[in-house]
Amino acid sequence: MYFEFLHVLGSCVDLFLLIFEFTDTSNDEDSSRSMRDFLDEMRAENIREHLRYFTRLPHLAGTKQNLRLAEEIKEEWLEYGLDSVEMVPYDVLLSYPNTTQPNYISIVDHLGNQVFNTSLAEPVPEGYENISDIVPPYNAFSAQGQPVGDLVYVNYGRTEDFSQLEREMKINVTGKIVIVRYGKIFRGNKVKNAAFHGASGVVMFSDPADYCATGVQPYPDGWNLPGGGAQRGNVLNLNGAGDPLTPGYPAKEYTFRYRLEEGVGLPKIPVHPIGYHDAIHLLKNMGGPIPPNNWKGALNVSYRIGPGFTDTFQTQKVRMNIQTNNQVTRIHNVIGRVRGAVEPDRYVILGGHRDAWVFGGIDPVSGAAVVHEIVRSTGRLLRRGWRPRRTIVFASWDAEEFGLLGSTEWAEENAKVLQDRAVVYINADSAIEGMYTLRVDCTPSLHTLVYKVTKQVSSPEVGEEGMSLYESWKSNQASGGFSPFRISKLGSGSDFEAYFIRLGIAAGRARYTKDKKTERYSSYPVYHSVYETFEVVDRFYDPSFQRLRAVAQVRGGLIFQLADSQLLPLDASQYADSLTKYAHSIAQLGQKHQDALITYGVSFDSLFSAVENFTTAASSFHERLKTLDRTDPLQVRMANDQLMYLERAFVDPLGLPGRPFYRHVIFAPSIHNKYAGESFPGIYDALFDIEHAANPRRAWEEVRRQISIATFTVHAAAMTLTPPA
Amino acid sequence: MYFEFLHVLGSCVDLFLLIFEFTDTSNDEDSSRSMRDFLDEMRAENIREHLRYFTRLPHLAGTKQNLRLAEEIKEEWLEYGLDSVEMVPYDVLLSYPNTTQPNYISIVDHLGNQVFNTSLAEPVPEGYENISDIVPPYNAFSAQGQPVGDLVYVNYGRTEDFSQLEREMKINVTGKIVIVRYGKIFRGNKVKNAAFHGASGVVMFSDPADYCATGVQPYPDGWNLPGGGAQRGNVLNLNGAGDPLTPGYPAKEYTFRYRLEEGVGLPKIPVHPIGYHDAIHLLKNMGGPIPPNNWKGALNVSYRIGPGFTDTFQTQKVRMNIQTNNQVTRIHNVIGRVRGAVEPDRYVILGGHRDAWVFGGIDPVSGAAVVHEIVRSTGRLLRRGWRPRRTIVFASWDAEEFGLLGSTEWAEENAKVLQDRAVVYINADSAIEGMYTLRVDCTPSLHTLVYKVTKQVSSPEVGEEGMSLYESWKSNQASGGFSPFRISKLGSGSDFEAYFIRLGIAAGRARYTKDKKTERYSSYPVYHSVYETFEVVDRFYDPSFQRLRAVAQVRGGLIFQLADSQLLPLDASQYADSLTKYAHSIAQLGQKHQDALITYGVSFDSLFSAVENFTTAASSFHERLKTLDRTDPLQVRMANDQLMYLERAFVDPLGLPGRPFYRHVIFAPSIHNKYAGESFPGIYDALFDIEHAANPRRAWEEVRRQISIATFTVHAAAMTLTPPA
Repeated sequence: MYFEFLHVLGSCVDLFLLIFEFTDTSNDEDSSRSMRDFLDEMRAENIREHLRYFTRLPHLAGTKQNLRLAEEIKEEWLEYGLDSVEMVPYDVLLSYPNTTQPNYISIVDHLGNQVFNTSLAEPVPEGYENISDIVPPYNAFSAQGQPVGDLVYVNYGRTEDFSQLEREMKINVTGKIVIVRYGKIFRGNKVKNAAFHGASGVVMFSDPADYCATGVQPYPDGWNLPGGGAQRGNVLNLNGAGDPLTPGYPAKEYTFRYRLEEGVGLPKIPVHPIGYHDAIHLLKNMGGPIPPNNWKGALNVSYRIGPGFTDTFQTQKVRMNIQTNNQVTRIHNVIGRVRGAVEPDRYVILGGHRDAWVFGGIDPVSGAAVVHEIVRSTGRLLRRGWRPRRTIVFASWDAEEFGLLGSTEWAEENAKVLQDRAVVYINADSAIEGMYTLRVDCTPSLHTLVYKVTKQVSSPEVGEEGMSLYESWKSNQASGGFSPFRISKLGSGSDFEAYFIRLGIAAGRARYTKDKKTERYSSYPVYHSVYETFEVVDRFYDPSFQRLRAVAQVRGGLIFQLADSQLLPLDASQYADSLTKYAHSIAQLGQKHQDALITYGVSFDSLFSAVENFTTAASSFHERLKTLDRTDPLQVRMANDQLMYLERAFVDPLGLPGRPFYRHVIFAPSIHNKYAGESFPGIYDALFDIEHAANPRRAWEEVRRQISIATFTVHAAAMTLTPPA
Repeated sequence: MYFEFLHVLGSCVDLFLLIFEFTDTSNDEDSSRSMRDFLDEMRAENIREHLRYFTRLPHLAGTKQNLRLAEEIKEEWLEYGLDSVEMVPYDVLLSYPNTTQPNYISIVDHLGNQVFNTSLAEPVPEGYENISDIVPPYNAFSAQGQPVGDLVYVNYGRTEDFSQLEREMKINVTGKIVIVRYGKIFRGNKVKNAAFHGASGVVMFSDPADYCATGVQPYPDGWNLPGGGAQRGNVLNLNGAGDPLTPGYPAKEYTFRYRLEEGVGLPKIPVHPIGYHDAIHLLKNMGGPIPPNNWKGALNVSYRIGPGFTDTFQTQKVRMNIQTNNQVTRIHNVIGRVRGAVEPDRYVILGGHRDAWVFGGIDPVSGAAVVHEIVRSTGRLLRRGWRPRRTIVFASWDAEEFGLLGSTEWAEENAKVLQDRAVVYINADSAIEGMYTLRVDCTPSLHTLVYKVTKQVSSPEVGEEGMSLYESWKSNQASGGFSPFRISKLGSGSDFEAYFIRLGIAAGRARYTKDKKTERYSSYPVYHSVYETFEVVDRFYDPSFQRLRAVAQVRGGLIFQLADSQLLPLDASQYADSLTKYAHSIAQLGQKHQDALITYGVSFDSLFSAVENFTTAASSFHERLKTLDRTDPLQVRMANDQLMYLERAFVDPLGLPGRPFYRHVIFAPSIHNKYAGESFPGIYDALFDIEHAANPRRAWEEVRRQISIATFTVHAAAMTLTPPA
């Protein structure tokens, strides 16, 4: 019909096209001018104010303070000028310490007398003495109980640590209380491993080796974790299920809830976190073998493995006293929208959580403050008459700390429209975890855009005036010994999970980070402690707030480009390059078992051939894009649909083995560490520890099955890029 | 951008819109003129010729003849003028009788001597004596074996028949050979029931009560089943899995195959079909209780239940001799395409199978001949310069008779692009099963279009000249005592299954049918026998071929309208009406257990409220459509996307309990009879036989869970119809 109109116009066609092209170009120019305005509008001092304001009180998920904060954010987003902002409640399973029976760990003598008890709370930082409702350190969703037993020290509690303990040290943890240090992997994986091996309880401690940087003072004189600080955190193994009682469906009033004992991912044993001052008391008298060097932390103790205490302390036992309660509690997401001018049915989502363990100075408020400033800047542009081509959705998620609950429930409730319409999900958790350089984890099709956007952002570092963030990032990474421009795979542990790994929506995240090469501590020292305050950012991490501003500009710039570009800035060829890399790396893993590959007829050839096919399809697709008639709205829409649905094509509704909500065949969190992203996770898991498989024939069959699924999926994705008819 | 162009044009805008509207209207007029040409082009004599040609030889799936036929169809479709036609092979599990060791059933005396053997083949009809490769009657995928035992007669082998047998007659079939009559339900369900109850084998016979119409002669003098005829057919319980060895994935060369013993839906016991002449010998001497009246067929025997024979025959047993082999075999779909002029990335699919048990005079060739004529007519229009707005895909499926394998494998291979792009799937299996009137089964959103199209088709009945098919259908249904215009739910048993129930693509089927009220036999008498010839159609079912032409016009008309209308002719309000009806009917089923509903806190209120919400959303959607700016290609596309994705919204990736490939929450085949469509199948199954549940609390919990899933799904579907931002 559109073409027919051109015919009807007859001799006017040339003029018509001229005008159209002119308006089109002008639109692109407008868009890039608006992008500049959008980035420039974001102010360091505003981000500081947002951070200040949002961290004045604790705002734990499910509490009044966090609801109040949600209401404030809603009001401000409306004032800033969003088209609509709504509160979206769910009733999910949360977990809180018992307010009358505190959690602690004791050393008890042979008469049952408590000879030592761990502290019930962290020393409150100066200036916050009058704040009530600071939840003491605890591990959310811990089972209740008072297990008594000997301690066994299992390093970080990783799969390989338990293997070493059992296979090499021949120590069985059945009925023992396991003590592990925080770090390296997600704490829920530690608990899963301990429970799997029969432990009756888990004590987690923060070792200075993992939570103190050299030459840095403990808070408040520096940004290290003080000895009285401890890391809160949930110990679920949800594998993407969201609310443990309503897996797969939103936790609404009409929703069927499983019984607690049927809930997904709830640990069956008590778990409790302590600081390193308390840890010394538990560790110092331990007996048993001397640990390998890489099991030793930085405390002045021997790190002996146990079981139990040595010498005169042999009769002493450890008792855990855990009274934490699970309860179904109302949470609230805040969802704001800017209606797209041309394609209102295409959604570009920027989401991050609002709930914090205590003040959330870094996690999540450094991120939430950045989102707030992005919303403010968006509002300014809207008031000047700008409107993005596509709809932008801003989300302030609740209960991320309790298992990504707010974001997952919303993804579940909106799964169908998101599947049809979501272009991208950009995550906005903590915006800073170090003072070194940018860190980006994202889907391969976003790589090109990330580079483009970081070139439009200035380096926030003193002495790098006039340098782009891109240049700064590049030079720092190079000096850090990494390949320059390194962008990592997405793992999990934040709110992008349901969008990316369950629904197959292109996703990414960006933040300021530490120098991985020299700073070996896990996350950042005060992570999830009461010392995550406004001051830790204001005094140490980003006194000028230029780093947070740069992160705001990266996150905002990504959203802007994805919402406003006529052609979606997604790059299928980057995906092809990544797939090639992943295929080689998984095949290499397989090659370690040359003989078995032959014996069991396992080959990676089909996968390589699928990746080649995908590479060709991607490059032809981008070749065709060059000659696309951009004046034809349907041509543009069709090409954009192919780009949007590319990520969706990697999702298998059948899910990964035993993990029905992890459906992305290319990327999933490692089953050994939820934080780490694994490529070709199905094949990877099938190959893991295959030399110890009870039935090698079956185990290699599973490898073949997984290679076949990956092959199919890559072929199917290639198909989405070929001309549609 | 489009709007901006309008602004730029300034004062020309009015003129511009005028022209646009004019071209638009003219396009609609063009389209309806082309529709008339398209329908008129279809000729009865051509359909007769196609039927004649396609039935000249047997074309069983996996055979050379069927590959040859595929190649011929491909050539002809290309000649007719399709843009492209390709052969798409898969390697799937098929099942054939052993050519050297035939299948049969014996009566053996106490010495083991065979005193009676069933026939090894059907008497070949006149004119076909020289045809080789007629496969003898068998049940595909039967287990091999020679079970020996007493016969037990279990009527139709339905769930209720086995219940009655066990609960009322107190007869246990463990280790017995069950004999059941064909009819009422899908034969695979009979076998599943028999195996579940412990039978060691199943004999299926065609009873004249179910396969002979009164006053009609057996073939060749009439269209009744002769006593030597028997019904072939597979006895799988795939539940939508497709190829039993590659569930969920296309059976390509790289695909992992499960071992035979792990295959989906393969029966573990031997099964064999016989005609009623042979059945008399097995039934006549049976002992045991006298059957209830509704267990009696039309043979001159007592239909006693057994177990075993009576009096002097007590020592005789029945032995099955089954040597059927499963083997992975190559099959070929033929896929033809007409590229859409405006939206090539929107697919309207017309698919039907090509493989037949023998000649396939009715099943499937009456349907395939109709498709062939539709393709020919499409080609004629293309040659005259017409091209549909959307892409049309024509499919000639292979191996439907072996479990819908060709269509399901193609759906699996193309799942991602189909999910993104498929507007509708129209099925084209047998076009005629009776001489009475039209029969349509389809998704509710197609109801309105079906009525519209049937008004444009003439009645094929003698004496109804000048009457539309719609009027004829309406009057026949009314006289038949049914509500007029009755359109049924889709069940399964044909190739739409993967498209509709797994992928959530709007689907429908249409054929000519018998008068259900007066003709009580199942399907049609010669169904799946060697007597399904060209002649059975040419002499009895449709001598003028006007009925097949009318079916061609209905199927073709649906495809045409869906491919060429600017706005998709799908009706969300019809869906709302159906949901309301289904909700009432499932709630009524629940109300039978008033006390339990209270005891276990089960309520249908949330479902009713969801349906109400959907109804409002649907009616507002259609209200908005009226003011849609049809000159704006993106506005039109967005509305069409909402219509297209509506059906998708009813699909739950988690599937129904125990049936991962049946994902449609509103429609699924009954677990008691694959042929029948159940609405709200999850709730229905949870309520089925709940008064006999071992653990009523658990059973009612499952009812609550299923109501909650249905509630959620209907809400989610409503959401897809609301304004996108």
